[in-house]
Parts: sequence; C-alpha cells; structure tokens
Amino acid sequence: MSQILKQRVRYAPYLKKLRTPEECVELFKDGQYLGWSGFTAVGAPKVVPDAVAKHVEDNNLQGKLQFNLFVGASAGPEESRWATNNMIKKRAPHQVGRPIAQGINEGRIQFFDKHLSMFAQDLTYGFYTREKENDKLDYTIIEATAITEDGSIIPGPAVGASPEMISISDKIIIEVNTATPSFEGLHDIDMPVNPPFRQPLPHTRCDYKVGLNSIPVDPERVVAIVESNKRDIVPPNTPSDEMSRAIAGHLVKFFREEVKAGRMPENLHPLQSGIGNVANAIIEGLADANFKHLNVWTEVLQDSFLDLFENGSLDYATATSVRLTEKGFDRLFQNWDEFSQKLVLRSQVVSNSPEVIRRLGVIAMNTPVEVDIYAHANSTNVSGSKMLHGLGGSGDFLRNAKVSIMHTPSARPSKTDPTGISCVVPFVSHVDHTEHDLDVLVTDHGLADLRGLSPRERSRVIIKNIAHPDYVDQLLDYVNRAEHYALKTKSLHEPHILKDAFKMHLNLAQNGTMKLDSWDQKFDI
Amino acid sequence: MSQILKQRVRYAPYLKKLRTPEECVELFKDGQYLGWSGFTAVGAPKVVPDAVAKHVEDNNLQGKLQFNLFVGASAGPEESRWATNNMIKKRAPHQVGRPIAQGINEGRIQFFDKHLSMFAQDLTYGFYTREKENDKLDYTIIEATAITEDGSIIPGPAVGASPEMISISDKIIIEVNTATPSFEGLHDIDMPVNPPFRQPLPHTRCDYKVGLNSIPVDPERVVAIVESNKRDIVPPNTPSDEMSRAIAGHLVKFFREEVKAGRMPENLHPLQSGIGNVANAIIEGLADANFKHLNVWTEVLQDSFLDLFENGSLDYATATSVRLTEKGFDRLFQNWDEFSQKLVLRSQVVSNSPEVIRRLGVIAMNTPVEVDIYAHANSTNVSGSKMLHGLGGSGDFLRNAKVSIMHTPSARPSKTDPTGISCVVPFVSHVDHTEHDLDVLVTDHGLADLRGLSPRERSRVIIKNIAHPDYVDQLLDYVNRAEHYALKTKSLHEPHILKDAFKMHLNLAQNGTMKLDSWDQKFDI
Repeated sequence: MSQILKQRVRYAPYLKKLRTPEECVELFKDGQYLGWSGFTAVGAPKVVPDAVAKHVEDNNLQGKLQFNLFVGASAGPEESRWATNNMIKKRAPHQVGRPIAQGINEGRIQFFDKHLSMFAQDLTYGFYTREKENDKLDYTIIEATAITEDGSIIPGPAVGASPEMISISDKIIIEVNTATPSFEGLHDIDMPVNPPFRQPLPHTRCDYKVGLNSIPVDPERVVAIVESNKRDIVPPNTPSDEMSRAIAGHLVKFFREEVKAGRMPENLHPLQSGIGNVANAIIEGLADANFKHLNVWTEVLQDSFLDLFENGSLDYATATSVRLTEKGFDRLFQNWDEFSQKLVLRSQVVSNSPEVIRRLGVIAMNTPVEVDIYAHANSTNVSGSKMLHGLGGSGDFLRNAKVSIMHTPSARPSKTDPTGISCVVPFVSHVDHTEHDLDVLVTDHGLADLRGLSPRERSRVIIKNIAHPDYVDQLLDYVNRAEHYALKTKSLHEPHILKDAFKMHLNLAQNGTMKLDSWDQKFDI
Repeated sequence: MSQILKQRVRYAPYLKKLRTPEECVELFKDGQYLGWSGFTAVGAPKVVPDAVAKHVEDNNLQGKLQFNLFVGASAGPEESRWATNNMIKKRAPHQVGRPIAQGINEGRIQFFDKHLSMFAQDLTYGFYTREKENDKLDYTIIEATAITEDGSIIPGPAVGASPEMISISDKIIIEVNTATPSFEGLHDIDMPVNPPFRQPLPHTRCDYKVGLNSIPVDPERVVAIVESNKRDIVPPNTPSDEMSRAIAGHLVKFFREEVKAGRMPENLHPLQSGIGNVANAIIEGLADANFKHLNVWTEVLQDSFLDLFENGSLDYATATSVRLTEKGFDRLFQNWDEFSQKLVLRSQVVSNSPEVIRRLGVIAMNTPVEVDIYAHANSTNVSGSKMLHGLGGSGDFLRNAKVSIMHTPSARPSKTDPTGISCVVPFVSHVDHTEHDLDVLVTDHGLADLRGLSPRERSRVIIKNIAHPDYVDQLLDYVNRAEHYALKTKSLHEPHILKDAFKMHLNLAQNGTMKLDSWDQKFDI
C-alpha cells in the first residue's frame, strides 16, 4: 500500500478492502449492468477495466464476457479496448473512440442515445434496468482522487453521472487515482431525489454551491478499493484556423448587436460552448473583443478557458468535467488557489439541467453534422444511419437556452471534392434538434438570425446568409420548385418535395459530392 | 354602462376609459404587433376583434389592414374572421380554425411555431419584435371577467401568455366579459422575470400557489375598457369509441405494471393529456380502473375532468385554460365552491414549464400525425409541408416528462382506402419530437415500451406491437432491406434507405394509399 494512498483514503475500513486490479476480475460476469464514472474522456476508471480486458484477451473470451455499460459521457482508451474485445453489448449515452463507433455501426453494440441530463435520471428511475430481476446496476466503477473521513468519494476531473450511478448501484468499486493530485474542493454534488419528492434546484448564478463536496456512499456497498496510477490522456486541442475565426467573427458581431439592442447585458449571459477549433476560436474572439466579467455554464471545460481566466475576461465557470491536456492539468494545479475559487464541477443532471439553463438564460453554442433550410439539425448520424458520438448535451442546452446557436463550416470535403459536402441541405437525414429550438445558425459565410421568422422566411435567410456559394443556386432551386408545387397542393407552410429531399445525400453516396447535375437525377442506392 | 359592468370593474378610473368596440377601431393601424389573450379557443377577446373585422369588411380593406398577431394558443371564431379577411400577416404560436390554416397553407400568413412555454418568454426577450423601432407590442387585447381595486386583471377561462404580453405591451385594451360569471379565485399568476434575475419556480406539487390571483397592470397603459357580452363557444367533445378505448386499455395496463414494478406511486404521477376522443377514453379508463387520488398538471382541461372530480378519482388539477362546453361551464359555476378548491389556472410559461414538469415527474400523453420506426414523431405538418395547428405544448411535456407517451390510431382512412394512411412510417415527413424524447408509443393494436432500447431494437418492437396489420410486412421489409445495405456500408446504428424513406408518403399522394406495390416503385411527384 503506497503512502500516498493511505493519505488519500481517510476512511480506514476501506483499506481492508484493498485489491489489485487483477483481484477484481473475478467480480465480473457476462451480462452484468455496469456504471463507469467519467465524462469526455476524463475521470473514468482505468486499471480495473484494463485488467478485465487483459483477462478477456488472455483467455480468448471476446464476445463471451459482455456488459451493458453506462458512462456519464465518454470514457478513455480503456473503453476502446473493451470495444475492440467485443465486451460491450449495450451502451449509452455518448461515446468517443473509433472501436466503439465501429462496434455500433457494425451492429455489435446496441447503443442508445439520450439527453445527458435525462439519461442519468432515467437510470435512477429503473428505466434502463427494467429487464433485470433487481433493477440496480451490478457494479459502478468510479475513479476517486480522495476519500473523506466518512467514506464519501471525491471525484477527479469529472462528476458526470456518478452520483446517480452510485445511488442505484448494488456494489461499488473505487479506483483511487494517486498519479494525479486530489481534486478536493472543486466539486459541488447534488444527490438525486426522485418525484414526487424532488425540490427546486436552487442555482441562480453560475457560482452557486449547494455545499456538498463529495459523493456520499454507503461503505457497506463498497466491495473493493483499487489504487490507480494511470493519468488521463487528452490529445492537444485543435487550434483555431481561418474558417473557425470567420465563424467566431460573425458571432462576436452578433453578441455586440444584442448588447446594443438591450437584449443581453454587457457581460452577456452565461456561455455554453463545445469542444473543438470553432469553440476555441469563439473563446479567443470574445477575449479579443474585450468582453469582460463573462460567466460560463457548460458541460465541459477545456484549456482555452484557463486563458480566459488568466486574461481577466472570465469571472466564473462551471461544468461537469474539466477535460484538460496534461499541460492544462499542470496549469490548473500550479494555480490551484486561484482556479479553485473560480471553477466548480457538478453532476451532469445539474450542469445540463433544463431548469437552470433556462433560468440563467444561457447562450448555447454547438456544432451539428448538418442543418437544413428550415433550421432542423442533425447532430448524430451521418447520412441518417451512421452514428458518430451521440447527442451529448446539445439538446439539453439548445432547447432551453435563451439564445440557441449552431455553428458549422458551410461545406466539408468529401474524398473527391474539397466542398463535396454541404452543411446546409434541404432536409437533414436525421433530426436531433427541430426548427422549434434553434435561433441562430452560423457558418464561415455568415449568420442567419431566425428568431420570429416563418419557415419560408427562414429558408431564404439560411441559404443566402450561410450556405456555401457552391450550393446557393442549387438550394434556391430546390426551395423555389418546392414552393411552386406547394402552391398547387396548398401546403405552403414548409414546402418540400419529398422525392428530392435527400438527393444531395444520395449523390454524395453515389458520386462523391452533394453537387447535383440536376434535381431530376435518379439514384440506384 | 351596465350595472354588472360597474360591479365587475372595481377600479373607478377605468370606467372613464369605457369605449364601445366600434370606438376602438381607430386605434388599429396596418402593420401593428398585437397580443391577444386566449388559449385553446377560450378566454380570447371577441367584440373588439369583431368590430375591426367589420370595419375591414365594410370598407373593403382586406389585405390592407394587416397585423402581426400573437395569441397564447388558439383564439375563437373571431380570429377565423380575421383570417378570412386577410388581416393576419404573421402569426405565432398555435392556431385552430379552418380559415387560419388555409391562410398559412396558401402562403398568405407567415406562421411560426414555438414551444408554448418558450414562445411567451421569447416575446418578453424582444425576439419577435426585434424588427420594430420600439420592441414592444403595440396593443394587447385581453379578456377579463373582473378588475380588482388596483386595476389588476382577473382573466376568464384562460391565462395563457397574457402576463407576458401585458408586461411588454405599449397599450392595453381590456374586454370585460359580463356574459360569463367572474372567474375570480381560479387563477395563480406568475409575472415574468428575465435572466439574470430569474428565481426558481417554487412549485413542488400540483396545488402549489404563489398567491397572486390577478394580472398586475400599469393603469396608465390601459387605453380602453370595453364591455363584452359574447360567451366562449366550445363544440361538444368527441366521445370515446372502440379505437380510443383500445388505446386507453393498453395504457391503463401499462400504468398498472409500472406501479407494480415500483416505478410509479399508486396514484401515478401528475398527468398531462390532450384534447379529443383518445384523451377522453384515457380519462374514462383511469376512472374505471379505480385509480384514486390522481393529480393533473396539464395545459388544458376539458369536461371529462369534471367527471373525474365528481367520481372522486381526481384530487387536484392545474392548467392554463379550462376549455369547457357551455354545459361544462354551467357545471363549473354550479359547483364553484368545490371546483375552485381543486382547480387552478396558471400562465402557460408555468403550466408548460420544463422545470416543473421534470420536477413533478409528469406523465405526458399526446397525439402525433405519425411516428416512425425509430420513434421520431410528426405533430404538425402533414406530408412534411402542410400545417395543421402547430406544436402546442407537446414538446414542453414530451421532452421533460418522466414518461413520455404518444398515442395514435394505427391507421387512418384516406379518400379511397379505409386504412390508407399508416401512422407508422419509415421516416416521419416532419420531425417535432425525436427518438431521444419518447418512451412509449401506443395504438389500438398495442403498446411499444422503448425505454433503454437501441434504434434497431425499437424498430422491431414498434412494427410488431403497434403498426396496423396491413402495414407490418411492408415495414419489416423496409427495415430488413435497410439493415442489409447498412451492413455493407457499416452504418448499422439507425439503418435507412434514404431513396425509399418517404415512398409511403409519395404513394399516398400519387395513388391514395400508403400500401406500396413494391419498394422499387417509382414516383413522379
């Protein structure tokens, strides 16, 4: 037992339950329901999943030892190893890792996709374990960075769905990560209370805390304590580029105008933004534009937010995970006293709560796969069928935000055409967000403010303001023809030609580009 | 001035502002932005809109005197008269009345459709008046049934969006309806507070009241008081029939099983249900099944709820409107002392609040136009393009409820085929609710419990449990072929054949039925 482990585990009875990862392997049986901590690749268990995977590899148990696996959102490379070994039978609600998406799209993993705020509470309702004899998770494996005097768990860089999982878990395995400093003081934990006993969430500001900084657990249910010395590995962030800076430029201009019109305060409303180069460009753009006293209410924080803190633009940030690079984590710990006063991690039920998002008037920004001319968005399935990562919290934020924004490049390259994929199409091939939810769409070509517009007004603004020039005429052609026919059938609310609605997708599949020779083109596939 | 008007208007200065409806006509100018009270055809203004319509008719001003019109939800026949006279330029968010839908589908009315809880707050944000010089509504015309000593408004059978409209209205016209008894004591009013100052909604039970029973208004902004003696006219309710009783039967069985499994308390959770024969059959079914101490948290109450009160099944009901028949209103007033203790009307921002719906664990039940094999639902647009009534509160409830249920006949008649329209299709022609939102689908043929199922698992359960027998083989054929192709392209998450996805709709348009000769069929339209 390492000295540091003894320091971290302040509840002595747990030390009697110390096991090596290998000694945990026998606990796992085919068909079990498991919860893992973790959110956006950080804070997930590592050494126990690796030991189980090794057991499968060593004994050729691929496809014979399979689990129903629930993770707050994505876990780390250990989950990919499980997918490679065909150890995942069912999975929800969000995943990252090539072997996992591969397992889903080859039909080996039954994946279902729920709003992150809803997933965790539905789990506590017993909805996802309803086919089991007892409706509990068999095990939750949770990463801790410390254990308090009463056996409560202090998580690492992610809270995620851990409070909910622990509340409905038959048995619990705790991985105490001693390779990273303790995150004690960074969390604010709400334990789930189900209807009819649920009370209002009291959060009225980003920095509000309920005051519980660890996850309470019944020590009797903890069956193993395992030391882990594996750190989270997050790849470097994608830097901003010309395209993402163009998008950010349009957005910053929009924010300035909203402030000027009195529809937003000078420090804006709390911001939600995703991961990736566009999100980073927006953060840079806000700082350059001299916005001050910003607040962030989001699900995941990345390195760029540390810059915002340091240059004085950002007052406070809250999320359910800090997904930092190794360098970012070092910065966090070097400036712990400062950052731990300006940062709090909550459960995903709270970070993504419709109640709080609406109350605070959050500004939500997310990236879709594609949008359509009437402002529906596809966030999950390429060409309608192929799963990327899942919905994540996009619906939680876009449905409830004061201003719901989606940003995307106007076109993406296909294998043979640098602008072969238009991100504006007549009809998205999968709908995750509807016209009733989105206020603003932005691409490198411009911004479409859709608030208060009818579908036909929207189609013109979207095509003219944000579509890639290569597709403007083709899309206008679609909408003009659709209106022409709809006039005859008196269906001019949201005119479509259903036989043509997916032709741009069909042409991409058949000919490698969304550029049609003609709307009369026929397709075999 | 009638004696009864003097009694109802307890704030004397208003009586100096008394006008006839005809004297109000001069206030209305082309292009103005107007708010009307009203929700589901009750509680809307009547005599002033009629006078303006008569002015248009008498002076041939059709299309020359047009308004941007916002109503909480649908108004009464007066709005249809406006639509007939081409007096509506833009309209949101929900409408009922043949001439209005006609105006929308002929492209004369620019209609946009928002979640009812969101519409009212977006209006207060200035989102829908952003193109005006001042971002206020020019006039709100609100029906009152009494005025308090400080000039506050006591609404009639609907609260709707009136608090929000009044809060952002430049001038206000009050129609005091003296043909109906006063509804004083039935309302509980939350006035809007916008971010960053918004506080939690305190509602933790259906019978919670904030304690304000009238809508406060600045008397200076009231420009006219008009006496109205026109009652609300609601057509008789559609009685239950064999089909709707079959749906109700499946649902009641489901509720019993949920109670038995411990996933619901014995008195269920608060119920939301819509209007129509299926909703009525469910209400009857619950009473027959001997469920007791039920509570209702919904947007509109109809006559059947009075039966539930009287037979002792229902403890408390709250909504934003009581849409009763003349007989129903008579019953309400004859038993006022009893009903007014068990009933409260709130603003639609509260009745449809995601915050409260989720907190209470509401059971939501709504009817779609069609659903698809992966559990997306179309609530608004027939064949993707033609507007019916709008989204209403379906999204508010279905997204946030504990159990989100949609019920529909398995098939509907087309002009030439009694089962020509399948309510289960491969891909809905418009998406209002996504697979991420719906838990249970029910038809006369059975119930599909989708909780925790992957899309491919869902497709089998939906087709086998709820599709009309005439369509089961055809739908299975689609999904089998889709899986066959998706295996090749490794896109087996939610398999679709995009070129075939709308063929059932195309066949209906071209041949009058969704029954295909073959999936290879080609279409001209």
